[in-house]
Amino acid sequence: MKKSIYLDYAAATPMDPRVIEVMRPYFADKFHNPSATYLAARAVRKDLEAARHNIAELLGAKPVEVVFTAGATEANNLAIQGLMGHYPKGEALVSAIEHESVLEPARLFNHKEIPVDGKGLVILNKLSNLINDKTVLVSVMMVNNELGTIQPLREISAVLDKVRKVRQAKSNKTPIYLHSDAAQAGNYLDLHVSRLGVDLMSLNGGKIYGPKQSGVLYVKAGTDLQPLIVGGGQERGLRSGTENVAGTIGLTKALEKAQQSRSAEAKRILELRQFFEDEIHERFPESTVNGSQKHRAPHLVNITFPGVDNERLMMELDEQGIQCAVGSACSASREEASHVLSAIGLSDSLARSTLRFSLGRFTTKVDLVRGIDVLARLSSAR
Amino acid sequence: MKKSIYLDYAAATPMDPRVIEVMRPYFADKFHNPSATYLAARAVRKDLEAARHNIAELLGAKPVEVVFTAGATEANNLAIQGLMGHYPKGEALVSAIEHESVLEPARLFNHKEIPVDGKGLVILNKLSNLINDKTVLVSVMMVNNELGTIQPLREISAVLDKVRKVRQAKSNKTPIYLHSDAAQAGNYLDLHVSRLGVDLMSLNGGKIYGPKQSGVLYVKAGTDLQPLIVGGGQERGLRSGTENVAGTIGLTKALEKAQQSRSAEAKRILELRQFFEDEIHERFPESTVNGSQKHRAPHLVNITFPGVDNERLMMELDEQGIQCAVGSACSASREEASHVLSAIGLSDSLARSTLRFSLGRFTTKVDLVRGIDVLARLSSAR
Repeated sequence: MKKSIYLDYAAATPMDPRVIEVMRPYFADKFHNPSATYLAARAVRKDLEAARHNIAELLGAKPVEVVFTAGATEANNLAIQGLMGHYPKGEALVSAIEHESVLEPARLFNHKEIPVDGKGLVILNKLSNLINDKTVLVSVMMVNNELGTIQPLREISAVLDKVRKVRQAKSNKTPIYLHSDAAQAGNYLDLHVSRLGVDLMSLNGGKIYGPKQSGVLYVKAGTDLQPLIVGGGQERGLRSGTENVAGTIGLTKALEKAQQSRSAEAKRILELRQFFEDEIHERFPESTVNGSQKHRAPHLVNITFPGVDNERLMMELDEQGIQCAVGSACSASREEASHVLSAIGLSDSLARSTLRFSLGRFTTKVDLVRGIDVLARLSSAR
Repeated sequence: MKKSIYLDYAAATPMDPRVIEVMRPYFADKFHNPSATYLAARAVRKDLEAARHNIAELLGAKPVEVVFTAGATEANNLAIQGLMGHYPKGEALVSAIEHESVLEPARLFNHKEIPVDGKGLVILNKLSNLINDKTVLVSVMMVNNELGTIQPLREISAVLDKVRKVRQAKSNKTPIYLHSDAAQAGNYLDLHVSRLGVDLMSLNGGKIYGPKQSGVLYVKAGTDLQPLIVGGGQERGLRSGTENVAGTIGLTKALEKAQQSRSAEAKRILELRQFFEDEIHERFPESTVNGSQKHRAPHLVNITFPGVDNERLMMELDEQGIQCAVGSACSASREEASHVLSAIGLSDSLARSTLRFSLGRFTTKVDLVRGIDVLARLSSAR
């Protein structure tokens, strides 16, 4: 059997061997409960806090602003439920193409969806118009998980700054916060929170060659959140439960490595993607790549093949060893067409002719050549 | 430096090498997102569901009744917040000696505390008297984490059955559920849910030689819970987020091994503990062991040394390589005396003279002999 070609890095990444390596001592050797007070446990606590410090440094944040969670879904829930729980009469604005882990918590509160344009970019003046005196939270993901579209966070942050000034002038004390789900951004983009202008930001270890169910919520100092999970008071009361020491150490190493190599890796992957898209366009002139050409994370390619049943094509590709996705993994098992593609104006029928390919650390040109050959073969056999 | 003697197994356990072994393939090989639909991902899904099936079998439950969580704290929160969220006018009863991860979520709702006797056993007729027409949840831990007291869950379940019959006769449709935090029980006790009569039960991988931040909430079919973490709809909508495949596989192996050896191990540990207690009594006639002698999990010894400062003794023991606990690890960093010891009637001053020793898989008689020698030496030097 031929080696399979994995083109679904946006759904999951294999753990980096260096990540596994740094986790190992915490399995059975430095296993102590970091809340215990004997020396061995304090050493574990020290390592955990060093990890927090490293993450903070990578984000340009303070260690107290880093909350470890079990993945980005929990981080998104903590950000949204945690903030909206404090302002039950407030309103949240979330982009129409957010991941379910943002949309679903927002649906528990007063909320509106911010429309996006045909490229998947949040429409800034529509966002401005949606903001009213009760708006306390704007949540816009850094990189869309289906299209790869990179949202203009700095511009959104500037809009919020203006709102803050207007409110101050009106003596309206309602705060307004910017949250961003950065789960798809960690491998390729700058995560410096003050450059981005975010108050809350979610990261996911499972998408950056770290452990699954490891994550971070960056919480800007002064942002009050209600915890979802209460008890022993770990993570400054924001997230109780004995800490996932091994997972946290692993996540930290993963983020370190991803951020160290992000510029070079973004360049490499972008070249590969350009090759892939050029070839696809040549072989399938009727196909279209969705999302922004200019503002797009390098690893994502979302392609519509008009007239093709995406489920069937995905399975045929799978049989030939090519692994890609129909929509996001989280919604793959459901029947509805992608809400993301629908938000950028694709018809149901075009959405059902769309595949997502996502590239990653082990993707090579040879892989892509084979992928395109298989696609072409399947197409001519039709 | 001498090998340290770990007597804090109730706070954390090292991972079993067999657990690490079964997790390994899921780090970088079978890393796929179990919600993706290509074959490799389906194989991961299959392994995850096989783990769920195994856990169900160990609990005498159905696979759909097993919800994987990030540890017992989250499981306790999901049980309590999840149920009480459905019955905002309902009332919860929780034993006065529950872990913080039960007490804190209960405090978010109408709740009362069930008193315990001097041994830490829930007083059944007081429990009965506290139940009223609005009571929807009774939460009593299987094994107390400080004392080791084993609660009479079957008797409590029988009380609830009577309440159900009375309600049925009165056409009161309010349900009443029994939840038990079994975090400290997995290594030594039977976890068969129907024999115990529980509707909800929390387990913790980190206390049974499995991974930290892995856990299970058993949810009896027909028990409606509101999820805490929403999004992609994993775990039948009860707990969204890409599944912690490696952690879940590890937790399952840990529970399997713990339950296979539980009778033999309970016997071995009980003999060791008896030896330890006898020696302590002989050397420190003024000391007392707290909790029930008869209804106690084998691994826990909670001892009051009147006149001794427990913090200081704990640190002195630590310097001599003996690791034990002052209260539970979760509350160790706080200033208050243990709420558990206070509930069984110990004065603040006696509570502050109390240490918890907890035995485990690698505890030997030699360890205990050395532990007692060190205790005696420290005491005579005073």
